[in-house]
Amino acid sequence: MAPDGSPKQSDNGTLVTRVMAVIRDRIGARNLLAGDRLPSIRGLARQMKVSNSTVVEAYDRLVVEGMIEARRGSGFYVSGHTAPLSIAQTGPKLDRAIDPFWVSRQSLDARPDMIKPGCGWLPADWMPETAIRRALRNLSRADDATLVDYGTPLGLAPLRQLLSRRMGTYGIDADPGQILLTESGTQAIDMLCRFMIEPGDTVLIDDPCYFNFQALLRAHRANIIGVPFTNTGPDIDAFARIAATHKPRLYITNSGLHNPTGASLSPMVAHRVLKIAEEHDLIVIEDDIFADFENTPAPRLAALGGLDRVVHIGSFSKTLSASVRCGYIAASPDWIEGLTDLKIATGFSSPNFSAELIFSVLKDGTYRKHMDALRDRLTRAMSVTETRLGALGITPAIRPDAGIFLWCHLPAPIDAATLARDALADGVVLAPGNVFSISQSAGNLMRFNIAQCEDDRVFTVLERAIMNA
Amino acid sequence: MAPDGSPKQSDNGTLVTRVMAVIRDRIGARNLLAGDRLPSIRGLARQMKVSNSTVVEAYDRLVVEGMIEARRGSGFYVSGHTAPLSIAQTGPKLDRAIDPFWVSRQSLDARPDMIKPGCGWLPADWMPETAIRRALRNLSRADDATLVDYGTPLGLAPLRQLLSRRMGTYGIDADPGQILLTESGTQAIDMLCRFMIEPGDTVLIDDPCYFNFQALLRAHRANIIGVPFTNTGPDIDAFARIAATHKPRLYITNSGLHNPTGASLSPMVAHRVLKIAEEHDLIVIEDDIFADFENTPAPRLAALGGLDRVVHIGSFSKTLSASVRCGYIAASPDWIEGLTDLKIATGFSSPNFSAELIFSVLKDGTYRKHMDALRDRLTRAMSVTETRLGALGITPAIRPDAGIFLWCHLPAPIDAATLARDALADGVVLAPGNVFSISQSAGNLMRFNIAQCEDDRVFTVLERAIMNA
Repeated sequence: MAPDGSPKQSDNGTLVTRVMAVIRDRIGARNLLAGDRLPSIRGLARQMKVSNSTVVEAYDRLVVEGMIEARRGSGFYVSGHTAPLSIAQTGPKLDRAIDPFWVSRQSLDARPDMIKPGCGWLPADWMPETAIRRALRNLSRADDATLVDYGTPLGLAPLRQLLSRRMGTYGIDADPGQILLTESGTQAIDMLCRFMIEPGDTVLIDDPCYFNFQALLRAHRANIIGVPFTNTGPDIDAFARIAATHKPRLYITNSGLHNPTGASLSPMVAHRVLKIAEEHDLIVIEDDIFADFENTPAPRLAALGGLDRVVHIGSFSKTLSASVRCGYIAASPDWIEGLTDLKIATGFSSPNFSAELIFSVLKDGTYRKHMDALRDRLTRAMSVTETRLGALGITPAIRPDAGIFLWCHLPAPIDAATLARDALADGVVLAPGNVFSISQSAGNLMRFNIAQCEDDRVFTVLERAIMNA
Repeated sequence: MAPDGSPKQSDNGTLVTRVMAVIRDRIGARNLLAGDRLPSIRGLARQMKVSNSTVVEAYDRLVVEGMIEARRGSGFYVSGHTAPLSIAQTGPKLDRAIDPFWVSRQSLDARPDMIKPGCGWLPADWMPETAIRRALRNLSRADDATLVDYGTPLGLAPLRQLLSRRMGTYGIDADPGQILLTESGTQAIDMLCRFMIEPGDTVLIDDPCYFNFQALLRAHRANIIGVPFTNTGPDIDAFARIAATHKPRLYITNSGLHNPTGASLSPMVAHRVLKIAEEHDLIVIEDDIFADFENTPAPRLAALGGLDRVVHIGSFSKTLSASVRCGYIAASPDWIEGLTDLKIATGFSSPNFSAELIFSVLKDGTYRKHMDALRDRLTRAMSVTETRLGALGITPAIRPDAGIFLWCHLPAPIDAATLARDALADGVVLAPGNVFSISQSAGNLMRFNIAQCEDDRVFTVLERAIMNA
């Protein structure tokens, strides 16, 4: 650098390399996807404190490498084929960008000695392991076909019948023939996106919402628009305005025990969401994976609007086992027919084995007893965690009726992402607010999983990080 | 109809409806996908023996329904959003078009009393059910985390280590960190297509090849080109010419025991395929799901070309269990990194439970003994089936070294699709040649699964259908 802080001419080779590395990193971390426009030359030059010509040279070299392409008169774009991620991306985890993948990667890859108040699931010893062990022993005596054959296209009939009855208790009218089993709740949404949207189509999500909705929709190259989320569901005025202006194709949401806020949809908001959806021919995907945690069931959009307007999905990962992969889609019969062909083409068969295991546990009265006890345990954990967080000045933005999440404000000047990075170095995986927020307006918020907050280290590490901030 | 066979004017309403139904059926059966161009007005009119104005009216009404759209000066196209399939599509199974989904649907949905010489898997009682039952009992004693937690992003480490060693025996150098577990072999190819191709990209497949490659690639809107397949692999001259002309991005094939022909790649063809792939920067996906059936291993493209050029995939559906869903991808480390993010976004977690079960069976010496016995049994079944088919004038196009398929010529005038429809009415699911052939040049061929030909009814039904033809 020259004394005035501007780069010396002789540094230019290094600077070009640095600019190239920044762009490669953003593509590697999927912050820039195939087809995305790169930052303007002037903007990036200003941001990185380099000359315009340095950025021009860096972009030109990336064009030669095939990673980006120039479009006459309109700037530079990430090439159609996402280039393979460079090896440099697989470095120490602490360097990873805090993007929608951050919590997933850190939580799924955590060492056994790490604690994970940022993750979205229960500790293993809170799950119904006795029932699962019994189901496994039963399954070891099943007939050959159950153990080794492909499943039918829709998936195990007795499980679909059971799901149909369960949905009936929420007022959702779904015949077993309208239910398609999938590998997971996530895969259910992925299949629906493949079936229903084209790249560039607009999809609404809540702001904040489950971070993986963003990651998933980016993989589909959707135009993602966030709707501000309130204590009773989406902000209806904003929802109506956005629906009218942007003509979205889909809206993805949780009705009961919204992730990350823990809020539940009010009947009035539910009614108005559906009215707007009908007016603008918008399909709603209702992701209901936290249903069994509710003390008082929220209204279900699929019950009010029917399966011609609302697609209802769920899984068993949160209450039964995340290791046994199985989810489902309930939709109108004609959609199920098309989704079944898509399922055969892209995965061939349904998860028969997992379905047998899930069915074996669900049909057993012990699952209900387990869930009753679990809800009580969570109510106590909610209260204890709220008190302990309160002592550190961390306060819930909403007090949820039930569930596993507390969505909290941090003491005023604290940046959640910085806190999460510091805590990770201390072996604690947190879930900083902005991974849930498409508008990046949750920098002072943090999602806590109350069932993962029993270890004192959570609070020791939080306290130290807050003191140092 | 008028006496000369042309439609009367008063029939026009019915005729328009009929043309509309034909187009809806093609879209419903995914023979026409979103964005595809419809047949020309003149062409369809000639084909259906109706007037041009009848087709014009039918197309106009479909435009009003939103199913197709007109593009100025360039004809009619299927609308961007694939319209939901009409209920009419879910009629009697006998009416289904014989398309790439035909065998999948018929086989997966078959009633228990049906016999399926057309399916691609072993009868349940040929599978290692004792080993699976033992694995299930072992798993019922596993620790809590194994039973209920999400898997790591790459998937169960001991299974990936075992797969790494297995691939080593084929000369494939794949570190466990280069192996990503998936829900199935099909899902492995689907993920690779999502990662590597854009709609409109050209992908090469063998002609004939596994019918689901076509269904899968259509879902990705690839431009699919078939390479004629010979007894020793793809026709190299055709492969070279097509690679030079069409600049394909991918080539999907089986090296050992090709489906449906049972052929194996010769070393010389393998070498030349790779040379051409390197010259045109073409990635090869080697689908190796029939590896354990081989008596003498064929050369593996991934061994010769390395994992920078060849992506190697496999699963356990054919030899161990199709009910326990688990497959894998071995690829270069940078691709695995990107695929892992895609996996998290679209399915969240790896199939941990299935992986534990597969690992438990594979690590056990009984699996090897089971496969030894199975190969002997298949050799005998191959000989018996060939003799019995021969008595009906059905003769193999290739005599495979091993495996479960016989790819056969029917007696001269017989159309395989007609035979398959007739047999289905008699409770026998067959696999007519053209479902495997993109060029539709296999109308006189049929794939037989020798392990599913032990029931005399197969031959009774074949004989009757041949007599009636």
